[in-house]
This record gives sequence, structure tokens and C-alpha cells, in this order.
Amino acid sequence: MDLEQMKETCVSSELIFDGKVVHLYVDQISLPDGRPAMREFVRHIGAVCVLPLFEDGTVACVRQYRYPNAEVLTEIPAGKLDYKGEDRAQAALRELREETGCACGRLTHLGKLYTSPAILDEVIDMYLAEELTEGETDFDDDEFLAPVRIPLAQLVDEVMAGQIPDAKTQVAVMRVWELLRRRKENEVC
Amino acid sequence: MDLEQMKETCVSSELIFDGKVVHLYVDQISLPDGRPAMREFVRHIGAVCVLPLFEDGTVACVRQYRYPNAEVLTEIPAGKLDYKGEDRAQAALRELREETGCACGRLTHLGKLYTSPAILDEVIDMYLAEELTEGETDFDDDEFLAPVRIPLAQLVDEVMAGQIPDAKTQVAVMRVWELLRRRKENEVC
Repeated sequence: MDLEQMKETCVSSELIFDGKVVHLYVDQISLPDGRPAMREFVRHIGAVCVLPLFEDGTVACVRQYRYPNAEVLTEIPAGKLDYKGEDRAQAALRELREETGCACGRLTHLGKLYTSPAILDEVIDMYLAEELTEGETDFDDDEFLAPVRIPLAQLVDEVMAGQIPDAKTQVAVMRVWELLRRRKENEVC
Repeated sequence: MDLEQMKETCVSSELIFDGKVVHLYVDQISLPDGRPAMREFVRHIGAVCVLPLFEDGTVACVRQYRYPNAEVLTEIPAGKLDYKGEDRAQAALRELREETGCACGRLTHLGKLYTSPAILDEVIDMYLAEELTEGETDFDDDEFLAPVRIPLAQLVDEVMAGQIPDAKTQVAVMRVWELLRRRKENEVC
């Protein structure tokens, strides 16, 4: 199938709920074959996440209550953009400072994560932070976070055992694990 | 911080939009320190995804237009549950058959993925499908999918290069890559 033939065209768009974080739309669309269909989806301003890796191989994580699933999750630091078009690297450094108290000397962009592309346009830019220097945390007023340092190798085992359900944390942990392996191979060569 | 002290309590819940896929709620809550706050979030029935791995090391993927981001994405087969409480393994076998035409002799549960836990309760159960036998695809009526076979090693490189934005696909690819490495190590030992 020609990819151009897969495109869905907007016929009309209705903003159902314009919230603080969630902006819900119901669009009437035209399928590639011309038939009508409907798409319910949420627009989100976008977010960043950052895996803070210390020289001793540990990662600064946060444990946080997530209301929709009514569970405490282990996650890497993350937060949504303050405004549309905000510089992602700057936002990552801010979240790193707020949630771990750290500054970093080396920030590596790992790429983008589309969390649930059928119903949500949220894009998370993922970063690895290294050469960390510790300072004071500065949590948002309505955030109740428990900081926790976990060895990266243990996080990998927990991801592999299905014990870390958060998507961005699974992705960042597995990608940094592979990134370190590739760096090591390059050193050996 | 004691984890019990992180719990957010529902004071009242309003269903704003009860759609076909998206069910939007605005809840008034009580923070751990007793202050009031508000949570906007979406309930979703849940989904499954499956990484179909052939003996030659290739993976059956689909390329699909995703309306919220207006992009064609490369993804592993996936779909939402047909009804609440549906058996996840059965749903994974159904999506595998519908989107790739394959049956499988070995299905491994990789665990759960919470796609965007701050605003969405969606849980995706992830599977690896092996010992595949090929048959006819049976796409849903409003699905325009382009099937594509990609070597797993190439998918890993594409994930590492930031070229596969879909969350479930990034997670499943990286986890299966690590799983195969661990199986191999166990064979050697």
C-alpha cells in the first residue's frame, strides 16, 4: 500500500474539553477510501523525561502516586513543557534539577516517545544526563515524590521482570543499557 | 516518605465525555497533606501488543497512519480489548492473526506497559510470539495497515537512532533483544 494512500483527512473538528492538561477532540474524518469515520483523541502540550546516571552506575528515580491507576510507580524524572515550543533540553535540565537536585555536565538526547499514538498526541523527548553534581530538590507544590537511587543493572532486571510498568522508564532504561554496551564496544575496538 | 502518605483520595468524580474509546473524567481529589486538587484523566479499556518473531530473525510490523500526530508510524501489531476482562493472551493471538495472518506455537508475556500514567489509565499487555505459521490477514474494516517484515537487529538500530517513536514498539523491541541475549547466555552456561 502506498503510504500516501493511508492518510486520514479531517472533515470537521470539535473541541469537547479544554482542560489544564488534557484537550479532548472529536474529529469527523475521511478514510483513505473516502468513507467517513470518527476519531476521539487528546492533545497534550508534550513532555520531557531524563535518566540521571551517576558515575557509580546508579540512577536517580522517583516514586510517585499515579491517580488514574491508583498505584505508586517507580519512574525517571519527567514533566510536561511549561509552554508550547519550550526548548526540550532546557525543560529536561529543569525537571532534573527540580526532582533530583542535580545539575549535569553531559546531556544526550535519546529521541522521541509517542506514548499512545492512537488516542493521544503526547510526545516525550527522552534524555540521558551524566556528569551529575548534586544539590537541593525543588518539587512542584502538588508533587509528592519519594526520591530513590537504583543501580541501572537492577532497573534493567526489574524492567525485564515486568516490575516497572511506566512506558518512558522502560524505554529509557533499556536504551541507556544498550547505549552503554555500544559505547564499551567502541572503546574496545 | 512513607508510600501510604503519597495516596491521593477521590472527593468527587465527573464523567465529562463517554466516548467509544476515550472516557474522560475530572476528579476533585484530596492531596496527601489534605489540600484539594484536581485530576483530568482518561480511562481506556486496555490493549495488547505482540512482537511476532520469525525464525529468520525478522519481525512482522505494520505501518499505520496515526491521526493525532498526523504521521505514518512503524509499530508491532496491537489492538484494544474487545470487552472488559477479555483474556489478554487470547486478544494477543487475535491481533496477531488479524494483522499478520499468523498463528503461533509459543507466546511469552513480557509484562505490562502504562502508556502515560499521569493522564491515562491505559494498560498494554505485551507479548512475544514465536514458532509462527503464516496465513491470511483479516484487518478491521477501518484499518489501513501496510505489513512490513524488518530484521529485529535493524529495528534495534532504528530504536537506538530515534526512528521508531511508538512507545510499545520501542519497549517490546528492546526487551526482546535483551531476552534473546539472556537466553543465549543461559545456553552457553
